[in-house]
Amino acid sequence: MAVPELSNLPHVVVVGGGFGGLYAARGLRRAPVRITLVDRRNYHLFQPLLYQVATAALNPSDIAAPIRSVVRHQKNTSVILAEVTSVDPVSRRLTLIDGELSYDYLVLATGATHSYFGHPEWEQFAPGLKTIEDALEIRKRVLLAFEAAEREPDPDKRAGWLTFVIIGGGPTGVELAGALSEIARQTMIRDFRTFDPSSARVILMEGLPRVLPPYPESLSESAARQLRHLGVEVITGARVTEVDAHSVRIGEQRVATRTVLWAAGVEASPLAQTLGARLDRAGRVEVDGNLNVPGHPELFVIGDLAAVKQADGRPVPGVAPAAIQAGQYAAKQIAAVVAGGKREPFRYLDKGSLATIGRAAGVADFGRVRLSGFVAWVAWLAIHIFFLIGFRNRFLVISQWAWAYLTYQRGARLITGQVEPVLRD
Amino acid sequence: MAVPELSNLPHVVVVGGGFGGLYAARGLRRAPVRITLVDRRNYHLFQPLLYQVATAALNPSDIAAPIRSVVRHQKNTSVILAEVTSVDPVSRRLTLIDGELSYDYLVLATGATHSYFGHPEWEQFAPGLKTIEDALEIRKRVLLAFEAAEREPDPDKRAGWLTFVIIGGGPTGVELAGALSEIARQTMIRDFRTFDPSSARVILMEGLPRVLPPYPESLSESAARQLRHLGVEVITGARVTEVDAHSVRIGEQRVATRTVLWAAGVEASPLAQTLGARLDRAGRVEVDGNLNVPGHPELFVIGDLAAVKQADGRPVPGVAPAAIQAGQYAAKQIAAVVAGGKREPFRYLDKGSLATIGRAAGVADFGRVRLSGFVAWVAWLAIHIFFLIGFRNRFLVISQWAWAYLTYQRGARLITGQVEPVLRD
Repeated sequence: MAVPELSNLPHVVVVGGGFGGLYAARGLRRAPVRITLVDRRNYHLFQPLLYQVATAALNPSDIAAPIRSVVRHQKNTSVILAEVTSVDPVSRRLTLIDGELSYDYLVLATGATHSYFGHPEWEQFAPGLKTIEDALEIRKRVLLAFEAAEREPDPDKRAGWLTFVIIGGGPTGVELAGALSEIARQTMIRDFRTFDPSSARVILMEGLPRVLPPYPESLSESAARQLRHLGVEVITGARVTEVDAHSVRIGEQRVATRTVLWAAGVEASPLAQTLGARLDRAGRVEVDGNLNVPGHPELFVIGDLAAVKQADGRPVPGVAPAAIQAGQYAAKQIAAVVAGGKREPFRYLDKGSLATIGRAAGVADFGRVRLSGFVAWVAWLAIHIFFLIGFRNRFLVISQWAWAYLTYQRGARLITGQVEPVLRD
Repeated sequence: MAVPELSNLPHVVVVGGGFGGLYAARGLRRAPVRITLVDRRNYHLFQPLLYQVATAALNPSDIAAPIRSVVRHQKNTSVILAEVTSVDPVSRRLTLIDGELSYDYLVLATGATHSYFGHPEWEQFAPGLKTIEDALEIRKRVLLAFEAAEREPDPDKRAGWLTFVIIGGGPTGVELAGALSEIARQTMIRDFRTFDPSSARVILMEGLPRVLPPYPESLSESAARQLRHLGVEVITGARVTEVDAHSVRIGEQRVATRTVLWAAGVEASPLAQTLGARLDRAGRVEVDGNLNVPGHPELFVIGDLAAVKQADGRPVPGVAPAAIQAGQYAAKQIAAVVAGGKREPFRYLDKGSLATIGRAAGVADFGRVRLSGFVAWVAWLAIHIFFLIGFRNRFLVISQWAWAYLTYQRGARLITGQVEPVLRD
């Protein structure tokens, strides 16, 4: 079924309401085009804070805003809830699960999902963290593990429930590990009768020689030190070779654990495969210097879906600021072409990187300025609050954080969804 | 598998962490007993505000508090996450899905679920509102209906998506209808491009001659007037005879609708059936004047699971204050018996009833004092904030409400969980 058409202006379709897609649509708000923003979800998700939902500090709606609300005042934009299954760049048509859609210009920004390095069977044992459902699944597993421990009389089995393994020492893994350790050592204290929650082990495993590999070495070392200070065991330089319901094997070692979280690899959304374009090893579309699929100046691929090289040959990283810049760039190019103007190549401006570790620790790399510890955490907090897109949420998120900080409580400790019997083997 | 035992004091098992169970456990905090509080959920749910989650105004965690946190300082109490499948009053044992548990005293407080008056096949078309999952399902259906309307070019089909039917004119139905009408007329305004959200119809259907049947007639009339003022169509005195995916039949009339919500009947939790006790028509246990199963002075049944008659023959209503009083009463009786004291019969003290309708309207019945409109709404707000059990939540809930009140926004407009293609037929 066709989607109703609103006018005869050039039709820009933006697929994906993440950072890239949203900034592309907003960048065209004054252009003489009509925009259709398509997402299979009705909300924009502030992914950098997703781990806070997984660790019961924030609610889903604290980090998500309905896409319709974000663009409600943008008269040239319609939002439709739909899933795109394929793109035909030749006929300029998208196939939806329940319809189709033609375009004059297309911005593809459907992002990435997790990758298990050729071991899809690990997914059931080690959920990743990309969606709200993922975050709620992780929250459920973590909370259920403590519940199961309370009811488990066998000390060995209980130790398995109280061992949490995070695979992948990038920002998400580091953030998850810090938050989990805090939950065990602070939030859960006094809540259980048959064990001491602070006896829980949180183990962070990274295949490369250090955590936060893209950061300067001094900051990686600082991060590992801060993690250990929080009680996290950090294992680097060894690859995980096996994951099952009761354990993880790393190198020669087998660690008994009932809760494994995956923060290791990502791969591009499968929509990339329908384009007929060249993909890199992670399934990302190899775009040209204008973020176009070669030969298709009307087709932009941005954000985590695209493999983009900087002038010096280094890849543009898969972070929110890069997606935002690409979205703004695509909007500017489309507006220029529509106005009969000239195009310019994309240039990525690195504004620095930040990662947080628990409630008052972190690392920050702003090129010449490097921060760690409490100062880095404050910088992280300020920047994230500033950028939270659901404008309503700023005040509420700050309230929740302030409360959590002062009381060590986590407000969203609910196990929702299907709950299996706790004592499963 | 047995649950670890902590001591040799008399063992009180409380099943259910709702109002009744929680107040029973808290009432025994200084008694020389050991208490095991069992729930299949890890949180206490403030059910009177569940419709606010269903209508996207509050987050699940705003109206729920982990049971462990609530009783964390109560040293004589263990909390276990488990589902009780049957009770054997003779051997004083409970069977769990994954274990068993014996007791000296038992307080059963597992509440009620919805009842479809012999039409279980209606459930798939008309979800009820008892759990957080129910509330999220309703939220999803309501939000998806607007999304589908945006994409539906056929005016008749679109009208079906924009017609919301609530079956049952008790407090929950009245609250849902008021909130839905507000969403359509205020929250969604400017969000859609192909229709005017305020054209949505919200229809409240009640089989008895008036809404809020247990209230005084003047308040029922006031409630109906306030609902109509908010744009709700109120149909009373006619029974629903058919519900399917596309319509509802009431009397001779068929209403085309894609979204039907069930707020009509409840029946007791099925655990009641395993007791071997007399049940009433709604499946509730017919207890004696001490809230005991006859012949079992150690077995209390309280809250929505029990059918209790007052001295004048009228039933004790299935509301939170009644469950709280029953829980406190059961605790007092157990403490008295353990201390070798005397028991007293249960007496219900009716403190009045309140229902809210939209953002600044309501009715209140405090016996001689009857309120309606804005004053009733303020009374409702004050009492609900005061009683919110998750102590942390008060401040945050007030913030959310203040924000929603001032801006007409609803912060939790997320469609989570499995989303099917929007344009289904």
